[in-house]
Amino acid sequence: MILPGRVYLVGAGPGDPDLMTVKAQRLLAEAEVVVFDRLVSREIMRLANPLAVQISVGKEPRHHLVPQSEINRILVRQALAGRMTVRLKGGDPFVFGRGSEEAIALRAAGIACEVVPGITAAQGCAASTGVPLTHRGLATSVRFITGHCRQDEPLDFDWRGLADPDTTLVVYMGAASIASIAHRLVSEGLPASTPVLAVNNGTTTRERRLLSVLGSVAGAADAALFEGPVLFIVGAVVTLYDGAPLCPILREVTSLERVMAEEAVHA
Amino acid sequence: MILPGRVYLVGAGPGDPDLMTVKAQRLLAEAEVVVFDRLVSREIMRLANPLAVQISVGKEPRHHLVPQSEINRILVRQALAGRMTVRLKGGDPFVFGRGSEEAIALRAAGIACEVVPGITAAQGCAASTGVPLTHRGLATSVRFITGHCRQDEPLDFDWRGLADPDTTLVVYMGAASIASIAHRLVSEGLPASTPVLAVNNGTTTRERRLLSVLGSVAGAADAALFEGPVLFIVGAVVTLYDGAPLCPILREVTSLERVMAEEAVHA
Repeated sequence: MILPGRVYLVGAGPGDPDLMTVKAQRLLAEAEVVVFDRLVSREIMRLANPLAVQISVGKEPRHHLVPQSEINRILVRQALAGRMTVRLKGGDPFVFGRGSEEAIALRAAGIACEVVPGITAAQGCAASTGVPLTHRGLATSVRFITGHCRQDEPLDFDWRGLADPDTTLVVYMGAASIASIAHRLVSEGLPASTPVLAVNNGTTTRERRLLSVLGSVAGAADAALFEGPVLFIVGAVVTLYDGAPLCPILREVTSLERVMAEEAVHA
Repeated sequence: MILPGRVYLVGAGPGDPDLMTVKAQRLLAEAEVVVFDRLVSREIMRLANPLAVQISVGKEPRHHLVPQSEINRILVRQALAGRMTVRLKGGDPFVFGRGSEEAIALRAAGIACEVVPGITAAQGCAASTGVPLTHRGLATSVRFITGHCRQDEPLDFDWRGLADPDTTLVVYMGAASIASIAHRLVSEGLPASTPVLAVNNGTTTRERRLLSVLGSVAGAADAALFEGPVLFIVGAVVTLYDGAPLCPILREVTSLERVMAEEAVHA
């Protein structure tokens, strides 16, 4: 009789391997099987047990290489084969990570499953840019939504509730939908001058930032030709952003410009 | 001339030392000064450089041992004395952590400051209880609020926006205010049967859980005599909770209701 293995649903954090939890790094180093997706960087995969079987189930928007049901089957099969399996996901498995769907499938198959949280992109980008998610007098609450819809269905939110000037709104995977999100927020009463910080590849060496406002962020983000994940932080907290914007039209900050700005601050 | 030191605003995570980031543990082990508050556990402080000066600025609700302005002054003074200073805060410094107030004070004094995110309580409690913060078909969004007000001012939220059945609502530090929060949410249209999971001392060995519903959570939480921080997760995702509640009398979501919700998800 083969004893079932255990599956760990592990958050890999926002990109920087140093921002993984101690537990996540240890489990990754011990894993016999690592099932990982597109948002997990190569730097992080280098920390995996070199003897582990690595299974990529990378997903691109609108192009799911491996359907969720098949990922569930892979996890169940590996666990039933008795292997210590790490399912590694970008960010946090329980924040837009579909980790709970995998947990339910594992539970249904009688397999022990443990969830290890990860720093989610909103936190990573807040820390790296210095823009807090809450701040007394500016934001009493913070809210995360995703701009990515399944099967290109329209976005379905309580827009009036979303357009709350006292709440920081963080939009995950919003590159394709920021135009309609910004439009709806302004229609529901948020000023078009509400500041927005877009963060591309946050916490990695390829981080890029774009400082804008609701009324024009869609065009600016489009012109920035971002590659990789983009996160939008919307609200008054963005006024605390201290990076020096250089390009007058896009007010975009590149890595080099950021280094220069930091040197200027610290000089 | 004394060169200024650097201050790291570091999230200690939800309680379990293993859920700190690798970067946070490394900085703590290297710090010359550690300024920490009440929510940072003894287990975590044991990981600090044994030669570090440890300064407690512990805060109790309604009894701030050290006012924020004095904490800011301590950080500036230590940094100007050239010491590598870690300001260690429970959870994430930028999620209800007032980290941004300290960052602003440091910036104003010309001191270099770096923010290191931490797993916030909502993520820690979600992972430990198996209740996801988002889940397809149950919650398209997640929102964090705090029930703790400054100087006992009344809670000030857009209540209608908060009462969104498609959003998971997480209430931090809500033990004293869950009665009025639950009452307002029901007044604004959330069903009194909306499930609520209260998590006390989440991710630590003293973790306790209470499964309830909006209509009766206040009384149930009161009866549970929680000590230490309590986090409330409100919304349909709580139907996915699979753990045995610790207080059987207070269990108010029946297995039948949970099964019905699960079937609805998978239909």
